[in-house]
Amino acid sequence: MTDIAPVLARLDADRDAALDRLCTLVGMQSISTDPAYAGECARTAEWLAEDLSAMGFAARVQKTAGHPLVIAHHEGPGPHVLFYGHYDVQPVDPLELWHRDPFDAAVIEEDGREMIVGRGTSDDKGQVMTFLEACRAHLAVHGALPCKVSIVLEGEEESNGDALKTFLAANPAEMTADLALVCDTTMWNRNTPAITTMLRGIVTEEITVRGATRDLHSGFYGSAAANANHVLAAALAGLHDASGRVTLRGFYDGVPEISESLRAQWETLDFDPAGFLGGVGLSVPAGEAGRSVLEQVWARPTAEINGVSGGYTGTGFKTVIPAEAHAKVSFRLVGDQDPDAVRESFRDHIRSALPADCEAVFTAHGGARAISMPTDKPAFEQARRALSEEWGREAAFIGCGGSIPIVGDFRRILGMDTALIGFALEDDRIHSPNEKYDLRSFTGGMRSWARVLAALAD
Amino acid sequence: MTDIAPVLARLDADRDAALDRLCTLVGMQSISTDPAYAGECARTAEWLAEDLSAMGFAARVQKTAGHPLVIAHHEGPGPHVLFYGHYDVQPVDPLELWHRDPFDAAVIEEDGREMIVGRGTSDDKGQVMTFLEACRAHLAVHGALPCKVSIVLEGEEESNGDALKTFLAANPAEMTADLALVCDTTMWNRNTPAITTMLRGIVTEEITVRGATRDLHSGFYGSAAANANHVLAAALAGLHDASGRVTLRGFYDGVPEISESLRAQWETLDFDPAGFLGGVGLSVPAGEAGRSVLEQVWARPTAEINGVSGGYTGTGFKTVIPAEAHAKVSFRLVGDQDPDAVRESFRDHIRSALPADCEAVFTAHGGARAISMPTDKPAFEQARRALSEEWGREAAFIGCGGSIPIVGDFRRILGMDTALIGFALEDDRIHSPNEKYDLRSFTGGMRSWARVLAALAD
Repeated sequence: MTDIAPVLARLDADRDAALDRLCTLVGMQSISTDPAYAGECARTAEWLAEDLSAMGFAARVQKTAGHPLVIAHHEGPGPHVLFYGHYDVQPVDPLELWHRDPFDAAVIEEDGREMIVGRGTSDDKGQVMTFLEACRAHLAVHGALPCKVSIVLEGEEESNGDALKTFLAANPAEMTADLALVCDTTMWNRNTPAITTMLRGIVTEEITVRGATRDLHSGFYGSAAANANHVLAAALAGLHDASGRVTLRGFYDGVPEISESLRAQWETLDFDPAGFLGGVGLSVPAGEAGRSVLEQVWARPTAEINGVSGGYTGTGFKTVIPAEAHAKVSFRLVGDQDPDAVRESFRDHIRSALPADCEAVFTAHGGARAISMPTDKPAFEQARRALSEEWGREAAFIGCGGSIPIVGDFRRILGMDTALIGFALEDDRIHSPNEKYDLRSFTGGMRSWARVLAALAD
Repeated sequence: MTDIAPVLARLDADRDAALDRLCTLVGMQSISTDPAYAGECARTAEWLAEDLSAMGFAARVQKTAGHPLVIAHHEGPGPHVLFYGHYDVQPVDPLELWHRDPFDAAVIEEDGREMIVGRGTSDDKGQVMTFLEACRAHLAVHGALPCKVSIVLEGEEESNGDALKTFLAANPAEMTADLALVCDTTMWNRNTPAITTMLRGIVTEEITVRGATRDLHSGFYGSAAANANHVLAAALAGLHDASGRVTLRGFYDGVPEISESLRAQWETLDFDPAGFLGGVGLSVPAGEAGRSVLEQVWARPTAEINGVSGGYTGTGFKTVIPAEAHAKVSFRLVGDQDPDAVRESFRDHIRSALPADCEAVFTAHGGARAISMPTDKPAFEQARRALSEEWGREAAFIGCGGSIPIVGDFRRILGMDTALIGFALEDDRIHSPNEKYDLRSFTGGMRSWARVLAALAD
């Protein structure tokens, strides 16, 4: 049994150096969805592999058809765990809304809390470093890790790339462990740690509606000529009915009702829907009528228009009838919803909304099924106990509205379950300007992983 | 009575020099809606004033709160006419769709027709120069003009500025003539000249819908949080009912049915709705059910979404719930529709479509009533005869779906009627990439104005 106290002490003593390492990592502009930043992604992978090598891991940068993977292995006496994280980040626009350079991370104080501000501090570079720092401390103190640890860090999580999936399928022997660990989720709240046991799936789709062969003058052609903006607005407005339900044919096939026992457990979580929405300036739940906010964001499928553009959007006014209009639409899936079927149903919906002289062009981005974990397996209880000890509160098993497709790949390709343990908070502004990671998330996260690794070896 | 034959001969002989002058004028990037081009607008006004001075006009550049006016006067024996045109142009985006530099005008051959290609060749620099060249030829041949001619050229037509309106109101004595002449409209077709006697009015409005205080992650907040893109799409989709009618309360107040006599005259025009739509790749009239295409574009009011944007619209995908979404919307008005009432009704419509936790911010751009001309006055018949002689076909009195607010100002502020005589064609791609002006529009336009000026003095 590992002596954990000196490892925790070492983490506390090394805190400032760990912060410096995180700021260096955040400084690399690894925006995976924009090809202009491919070099920065590669540089980030190199830096991580070097850091892991310096710790004593057998680490390498693995080339792929897309952004590279970082892969590392270290022997240990306990069970074999595979830690997963991603080093890529979301774009930073609108840049003018950031209060400081998104790639120049710093610790600031806000509302009496210390927080690290910068793109990727929470999603996912800060979370990744909590695990790496825990390994570093174990190795520094004991010269060993409590478990056999493999690590894989990908660079295409934010761009829905499939380089990692391809690599797993081609290298199952190297990548299969007893349990996967993922640090890309939130705590239940600032004081209560959590293991996420339900993840929604996702379908992302891009659509272009085309009308006339060119932009037209709305004076000459107005009302007689199809306006791509109108056609798209009508098609997208029709995605929901008045009760907030998604109208796609077959959309709710495979959507389960949550069990009474889960509903009862969620009720003990003391969730405050008014505070949840009020924290971002809202007050009216926008999802399906008759469903609680927690159900809407954890257990119900959604359709969201993530982006839309068409016609003249610059300064001033241009009375144009646009020939094209564009949208990016995503669906969050639950239960047994089939991503391919949802995508096809969406395309049918759009096509059926088109006048005969308009057409739609579709581009598929990613797709993944929803997933839930077998929380009765011992590893989940061991991890839960370790988290509870660190935070002084019973850790919660919670749902998550987000999608982490790799968790499905771990199960389907490698037969592994995943313990999703993260220290982000709902107000971390991930994917938004002024993304932050609470300093306490970072310090508590490092200490938590040190304990979890030890507990899994018990 | 003016001897017109030598004036026409002079125009034919001077054609290449006239083309050079037009290309120089097109080369000035007078995009009025974008403040970055204010200097180019001023340079364009200077050039025009110098050209008019060189011809013998008393010409000046008149400063305003916005882009300057060009004002010029020349004595003559006949009635006093005020010629109006605009030297500003629309933006050129999307630039990648132009086959050549939009500001490097040139004569090319396409489909067996010679045409001048460049931004503003048709709207309105080419049209303006047809009138200036006609004056130049009269002055060169006879040392005099058949009429007393005043000219006002504005630089804010494409940006809905009110500098000219303000100037007219402040200087009615200088600017009032017996008749206004405007060259900013089309021929009926390539062989048939036209005087436009009905113009639609316009209301332009910009709207921003605001939901959450920041962009949100669609995994964490999806379906529970209001999505500004959804709210906007639903509100805009609701602008029309299934029959194509605009749903705004009171929108059709003051919309007249066209008279049986006008309907009968339009039927003689041999309009081909399938060809009109087919020319731009469309086949399904998008306007009100039960109305002909000609009625839809000339005599019925419209609502058009000219631009829309919200959320992530860059390369790749970002699963964001946008805090804001934007639209530019315009309405074309007919009959006695009140622009202010339409604007208020639109704002009410949007507000009523908002959830309680979302808000809308509105920005008014221009507004103008529709207008129609007293075609029984002699000047209209004189101009019609002159056009018919030049083109060898009876000139048509036609409607126009576009809006030229200044024509309403001429009537309301100065008590003047306007003869709208233009030589543009429906396929001139105005406001679009590869804008052109047929060489025959230019040469026939110059000769037409030479004849019209003489005819008005008869």
